[in-house]
Amino acid sequence: MIATKGYAAQNVETDLAPWNFERREVGQHDVLMEILYCGVCHTDLHQINNDWFPGIFPMVPGHEIVGRVTRVGAEVTKFKVGDLGGVGVMVDSCRTCNECNKGLEHFCAVSPVQTYNSLGKDGAPTYGGYANNIVTQADFVHHISSKLNLPGVAPLLCAGITTYSPLRKWKVGKGHKLAVIGLGGLGHMGVKFGIAFGAEVTVLSTSEAKREDAKKLGAHHFVVTTNAKELASVKGTFDFILDTVSAKHDLALYINLLKIQGVLICVGAPAEPYELHAFALMTGNKVIAGSGAGGLPQTQEMLDFCAEHNIVSDIEIIDIKDIHPAFDRMVKGNVRYRFVIDMATLK
Amino acid sequence: MIATKGYAAQNVETDLAPWNFERREVGQHDVLMEILYCGVCHTDLHQINNDWFPGIFPMVPGHEIVGRVTRVGAEVTKFKVGDLGGVGVMVDSCRTCNECNKGLEHFCAVSPVQTYNSLGKDGAPTYGGYANNIVTQADFVHHISSKLNLPGVAPLLCAGITTYSPLRKWKVGKGHKLAVIGLGGLGHMGVKFGIAFGAEVTVLSTSEAKREDAKKLGAHHFVVTTNAKELASVKGTFDFILDTVSAKHDLALYINLLKIQGVLICVGAPAEPYELHAFALMTGNKVIAGSGAGGLPQTQEMLDFCAEHNIVSDIEIIDIKDIHPAFDRMVKGNVRYRFVIDMATLK
Repeated sequence: MIATKGYAAQNVETDLAPWNFERREVGQHDVLMEILYCGVCHTDLHQINNDWFPGIFPMVPGHEIVGRVTRVGAEVTKFKVGDLGGVGVMVDSCRTCNECNKGLEHFCAVSPVQTYNSLGKDGAPTYGGYANNIVTQADFVHHISSKLNLPGVAPLLCAGITTYSPLRKWKVGKGHKLAVIGLGGLGHMGVKFGIAFGAEVTVLSTSEAKREDAKKLGAHHFVVTTNAKELASVKGTFDFILDTVSAKHDLALYINLLKIQGVLICVGAPAEPYELHAFALMTGNKVIAGSGAGGLPQTQEMLDFCAEHNIVSDIEIIDIKDIHPAFDRMVKGNVRYRFVIDMATLK
Repeated sequence: MIATKGYAAQNVETDLAPWNFERREVGQHDVLMEILYCGVCHTDLHQINNDWFPGIFPMVPGHEIVGRVTRVGAEVTKFKVGDLGGVGVMVDSCRTCNECNKGLEHFCAVSPVQTYNSLGKDGAPTYGGYANNIVTQADFVHHISSKLNLPGVAPLLCAGITTYSPLRKWKVGKGHKLAVIGLGGLGHMGVKFGIAFGAEVTVLSTSEAKREDAKKLGAHHFVVTTNAKELASVKGTFDFILDTVSAKHDLALYINLLKIQGVLICVGAPAEPYELHAFALMTGNKVIAGSGAGGLPQTQEMLDFCAEHNIVSDIEIIDIKDIHPAFDRMVKGNVRYRFVIDMATLK
């Protein structure tokens, strides 16, 4: 077994705190990585709080992991010691079901294994990236270009693929008007990808304070949705809207901004349900499309695209000891745009 | 002006009753048709009841119209006297906006004119097909094959195109599993088109009583959704679900029956909003797509497809005097599957 230091929540009541645990031995198809950086996703907080379902404790969160390979299994050809690697939301799946065969391992119907708060095929809990190392099947580790700023790569493994995947599925690009709702970890990546794909990008926000941020990210337009006149000026104008907001909000307001046959893509998940009038979709053949993360081939494709176009997440690097103040700021949207833990701070 | 006999509601409080009115003169681009049959759409009842918005009274409903051309304008080459013709939900649009240019005249952004309860470009109210004749621009009249049973064609002009259009947009066909919810005017056409397009069709119903009906229509499978075991057996199995129900229902129940990346198509519009959890769509990249009617080119394409495949609506022919009892039965779902008024009964 491999000795590991991490930060864990011992149960739903406790804060994250240092915890020593063990990873499995490096199997024939595994790699061991020293974790260098791990992004802080809103999901991490939801899971240690049992917001969605009862979690598996102790819980070591983190699924935006970048590091350096320090050992490889006998059968591994994909990586050699010293290579950079990245791990996202998944660490295993059945590899044989319809979904896995289509490269949609994150929707594996048989045995999907999340990077943390999940049970591996061996029945053992998985522990995430708030730790100094990880043992993972090489197939679930992605190549990372050394050209990119490494801490900024970490959020690509979740926030990046979550926005890249639907924009690719719906072929968003040149000639399209794309609106992005919410300028957080997901939203700012949506803006970057939208621009890189050639779309004309508008940031929609309830706050005038985001206007400068949107401009700095390269968005072509900015609309304060609480300003009725500004809002009216973009009615029926967007081919696509990427909705990254996970707080409660009025979907009808945004559907109204879609062109005929426009598509609203949901990647944020409010706890409360939306109210959706069928009429709002029928009048204009409009579409609401959900999208969650992405599979292995597309995650690598996204990372390669980012390397080619020099795209990383805008981040604020933190000491792991400051994880709870960071959570507090994240909840308030007070981060541009993702916290990333420097794992060198984990002593 | 052209003298016309029809059935009209004089205001929202009154029943439909005989009413004599005038149609405009046959213009250079118009045709005059003797109306032979008119389908009874649920929309007719909604509109005379002001269910959606305050209507224009007197109101002559009816937008599933088939008849015979009895006069043509000087510039009309599309029709000659004696030809069969059909009019659906639209009688005019701007013909120059983006939507009109794409053949989506029913979503015209400038001046869409509905067949009834609408104002024409001349500012005059439009009157529908519960009448003995109609004057319409030839471009908004469709060719009807004489091979088809004419009264069964009438409902194609609304219920037909409303189900044909989304199944074509989403390329439903061979290798797809299609579920149809609701076996009424729309639903039974959805079943017929689904089968004609090569899909494997399942009818979902809350009522065991519909099992025989589904079989008679040629559906491959039938599932009573109130039977938990039957419902569980089709979880995650459908590529597409065509939801034709306009009574309140639980969308989550049906989203759960979609495959990964499956599409639920809404063509029924309950008055109350759906409750929609973003998670239900995100887990599995699922899609909800609205669809309303269809444009001119696709409506003709649908009618030609029906002629080629001998598809008409299953109908019950009524005397126009019995329109209110028919409405009552329609509301209860007690019709297989569409009432059609024989206009010869309008004396």
